[in-house]
Formats: sequence, structure tokens, C-alpha cells
Amino acid sequence: MKALLLKKGKLRLEDMPMPIPSKGEAMIKVVKAGICNTDIEMLKGYMAFEGVLGHEFVGQVVKAADRRWRGRRIAGEINIACGKCEFCLGGNEKHCSSRQVLGIREKNGAFAQYLTLPVENLHLIPQTVSNQEAVFVEPLAAALEILEQVEISDNDSILVLGDGKLGLLVAQVMKTKTDRVVCLGRHKRKLEILKKKKIKTYLKGSKIEDSFDIVIEATGHKRGIEHALSRVKPKGKVILKSTYHQQASIDISKIVVDEIQIIGSRCGPFPKAIALLKRGLVDVLDMVDGDFPLDEAMEAFRLAREPATMKVLITP
Amino acid sequence: MKALLLKKGKLRLEDMPMPIPSKGEAMIKVVKAGICNTDIEMLKGYMAFEGVLGHEFVGQVVKAADRRWRGRRIAGEINIACGKCEFCLGGNEKHCSSRQVLGIREKNGAFAQYLTLPVENLHLIPQTVSNQEAVFVEPLAAALEILEQVEISDNDSILVLGDGKLGLLVAQVMKTKTDRVVCLGRHKRKLEILKKKKIKTYLKGSKIEDSFDIVIEATGHKRGIEHALSRVKPKGKVILKSTYHQQASIDISKIVVDEIQIIGSRCGPFPKAIALLKRGLVDVLDMVDGDFPLDEAMEAFRLAREPATMKVLITP
Repeated sequence: MKALLLKKGKLRLEDMPMPIPSKGEAMIKVVKAGICNTDIEMLKGYMAFEGVLGHEFVGQVVKAADRRWRGRRIAGEINIACGKCEFCLGGNEKHCSSRQVLGIREKNGAFAQYLTLPVENLHLIPQTVSNQEAVFVEPLAAALEILEQVEISDNDSILVLGDGKLGLLVAQVMKTKTDRVVCLGRHKRKLEILKKKKIKTYLKGSKIEDSFDIVIEATGHKRGIEHALSRVKPKGKVILKSTYHQQASIDISKIVVDEIQIIGSRCGPFPKAIALLKRGLVDVLDMVDGDFPLDEAMEAFRLAREPATMKVLITP
Repeated sequence: MKALLLKKGKLRLEDMPMPIPSKGEAMIKVVKAGICNTDIEMLKGYMAFEGVLGHEFVGQVVKAADRRWRGRRIAGEINIACGKCEFCLGGNEKHCSSRQVLGIREKNGAFAQYLTLPVENLHLIPQTVSNQEAVFVEPLAAALEILEQVEISDNDSILVLGDGKLGLLVAQVMKTKTDRVVCLGRHKRKLEILKKKKIKTYLKGSKIEDSFDIVIEATGHKRGIEHALSRVKPKGKVILKSTYHQQASIDISKIVVDEIQIIGSRCGPFPKAIALLKRGLVDVLDMVDGDFPLDEAMEAFRLAREPATMKVLITP
């Protein structure tokens, strides 16, 4: 099959053998996949991964021990847990210390014609959710993870830093909880998507006087956390969503004196993401800036790396 | 009166006018005061303060509008709030945006013969608590603040990084909640205090294999947070107690991927600290390495700055 591999920091489109499902795994034909900022950070060395990239996808089950899955259209959770360690037994499978992660850690990913995943990772996609929308289940779940970690009331003021793919999803998810959401970004075209949802936006350079109960850092830049700390109220929360291959410099005393909480936030609940898409509460289609056949994956990545680009899809 | 002032980064023992109590303030004769690491950081420029240093003290009320306070032995909370801002009205007076802080921000402190504080900042010291012990009310309250912020069960494993004054108090406070407390320090003599309390200790250099549910950073060094992050479990908490005049470098992706919470922690509840001292649950007297008259305050600071020293007191 054809696949896009990361090898020694370089992307290559190659022919490779079909994957072989392990016990409990389904064979899945990839229908559509999305390029995430994490993929781009991985080209720079983040996670030191070698193999098929890609972890946002919608697929069709080709083979599974349980016949009911066959032919079904699914999204797949990306963490493959051992089921035996302290974290798995405590219900924290996504923090399993020996986990594989689709397209990120020891498991070939979705920029390929086929992939395999344990059937317990699969979630049915309702008919009313299109393939382009379904690719957003994984990043939307990541945005929803914030609501699993922090209780947000309609009194809380929230600043989202960054109008990248994740920032746009996060701002829309927060808007389902409170009207007091503001997003600071760099691209008028991207912020337009939020304006349609009646979310207040600021272009970088404009002055924000306020400080906020909650600041969500989704810029993907190492200076983002410093900016977040400068905009959060005492006793407030800074939520970190960006992963990148760099150290950040922060003012520890500010965190101590203002008793700020910083909360790291990663993968989230797929069923809730699917439900949001089904209800049409989050606008994802306007975020698609390109949809390329797998043969043109290199071109897709070139586009995805441009700062002005939002989501780029790959269709095997 | 005599006082120890910080001026342009230098300490000077000077004669200065007696302070004049504002409306609602009591005049307090300082009985004994303690040197804190924050004082030492302030010599390096932290908080850019000029005036009388010192915020840990026990004193005697000389004058107060309410006669019942006169002659009483007290400890004093250090944050002087405006009573009108969003934080004051929300019950978060210690985060008042225009607060003064005794010996730290716009308010002369305790290394002097007299100071003034609002009567609502005062807490009676019971007769069974000695003056040397009472000086520890403020830092012990800071250690207790952790329990106000984080629920700790006897199942939680806790690592305290640092065997400085605050680390020793924090470890003892944590021990009141769980037996699974470990302290990593640099000084055998300091760790001895914890051993007496049956707290497991490690000297720097010895290997700790475990990771912990909660890691409390009290080293006062900018590399402490990195160490804390390397020792906390996924979904665990890192509590920051150190304030210092430097930026720290941290691995943001580790916080995001492991969904770690970082919690800044500052001043805490005086009544609970006084109660702990009264019940003899925390050993503070073994931490006193010197008690100098105010005239010898420069010598007291010289001793306090040596890494092997624990608490140094000043008696005006």
C-alpha cells in the first residue's frame, strides 16, 4: 500500500506492506485524514518518531473479529494502552506508560491506505456527519478535554490565545459554556470563522486591557505561556494545549504569588466530539483549506506548513 | 526607632521615625522576627522593594482602637487589602490588586522595633506557644496553604523537593495527611528533623526510582520545577512554593502530554498554623540556627545566607 513515512526527519511517500492486525485489532481503510500541528512539530524532531505519520482520520472497517464492525465508518482513538499497568487499571488508559500512539509513538498512522487499531478504540460516525467533518473528531475531542478537566460556568471569562486549527476549535467549544469568550489571533480570515459564531476576536497588536479567569494557550509557540500568564487573573487557570519541540521560559514567582493553576490538556472524549458535530454546534468545514490525494501528500504538507493555512486533508 | 532597611539592594541598619498607625491599624512592638528566603531573594532584586524588610514576626500590641487588643501577643497576616476591588469583594483579599505586603510591597516590615498593621490582620498567640515558635506562624501558614488548594488523601504519594526552611515545614504538614511523604534535600542535618518525624528522606545524589502523585517544589532554585516535572506521575500535581528572581525553563509538552497540573501556592491560613503549633504537631524549634539582636542584623543575614543554615531570628 501507499503511505507517507517520516524517516530521519524527512517525509517520503513509499510503497510498503499492508499492516497486519494484532489480536483484537480491526483492519481499517483510511477514508480521509487531517494534518495536525503535532505532525509538523514531529518533522522538527518532536517525539523522535519514525513510521507512517497521521492521527486524525475517518475510516471504514474492512476486517474485525466482531462482524458488526465490518463496513462501518469510524473515527479511532489514538492511544493504544497495555491494559495492565497502574494507569490502565485506574481508568487512565491514555496515560498508559507503555502505550502506542497512532502516528506518534510506535504505531503506524493514518497517512496511508490502511491502518490497524484495537476495536475498543473505534467510534461509529453517524450518517449525518460527513467525511470532512469526521476528520475533526480527534482534534475536537482534544478541545473538549478542557471541559473534562475544568468546570466552566457562564460567569467565567475566557481568553483563547491562537487562531490555529486547535484554537478555533477550542474557542467554539468554550462558547458552548459561556458567552464571555475572546480569541486573540494573527489571521483575519481565521478569526472570521469565530466571528460567525459571535465570538469576540482580536487581531494581534490590538490592545486587550482585561485579564481573564481562564486563558487557554493554543498558539503552538514557546512564548505563548508567558503571554497567557500576563493575561490571567490571580487564582486563575492557564490551560496548555500546544505541544512543541522546545523549552519555554517562565516566571515562576508570578505563578506562586498569584496562585495560578497551569493545566496540561491532551486527548479528549470522542463520543462528545461526535455529538457536537452531529448537532452542528461547531463549524469545521470552513477550516478546510485543502484536500489532497495521498499521492500529493508532500504538497499537502507544504501547504499545511504555511502559517496562513488552516486544516489540510489527505484522501488516500 | 532602629530598623533594618533595604535601599538600592543594600541592607542598612538605621534610625528612623516610629511608624504612625493609619485608621484601623494597631501599633505593634516587634518581639521577634524571622529571616525568610524571600528576604534573601529581595536583596537580589525580587519585588524591587525599598524599606524595612521582614514579614515573619511575633509582636505585642501597644496601641489599638479596640482596647481588647492592647498588650496582646499576636502574629500578623502580611497582606493589607484595599477592601474594595473585585478580589477583596470576592473574599480573595490576599490577591487584592492594590495590596500592600508587610516588608515586601509598599509597607515597612518587621526587622524594626515597631510596625503597624490593620487589626483584622492580627491573630492571638496562645500562651503555650513560645515567641520562637510564634515566628513560624507565617511560613507554617504558607505550608498549610497547600491543603487549602489540593485535597490530599492518605493514598497520595508526595515528594517534597528541598530541605530549606519551607521544605521542612511543608514535609511536616504533608505528614499530617499521609504517611507516604518523602523529602529530597541537600543537608543531612536538616533532613534529621524530618527523620525524627518518621518522614523518609533522601540526600541529593541518591537515586529515587519512584514517581509521585504530588511533587512540591520548595528548593528555591530555578531548576527545581524541571526536577519536579521529571518526578510527577501523569495526571499528577506539581505545587510551586518557591519565589525567586529568575526565569525558569520548562518542557511544556511534558505538561500537556502527561496532563500535569501546576499550582502556585503562597500565603495561607494563620489560625490553622497557630493550632498546629499549639498541638505540637510540627517541630520548628530545631530549625532555629541563631537568634540575634537587631543591632546584629547584618550578622544575622550573613548567617541566613549560608546554604547550611536554617532559620535565623532577629530580636529587636
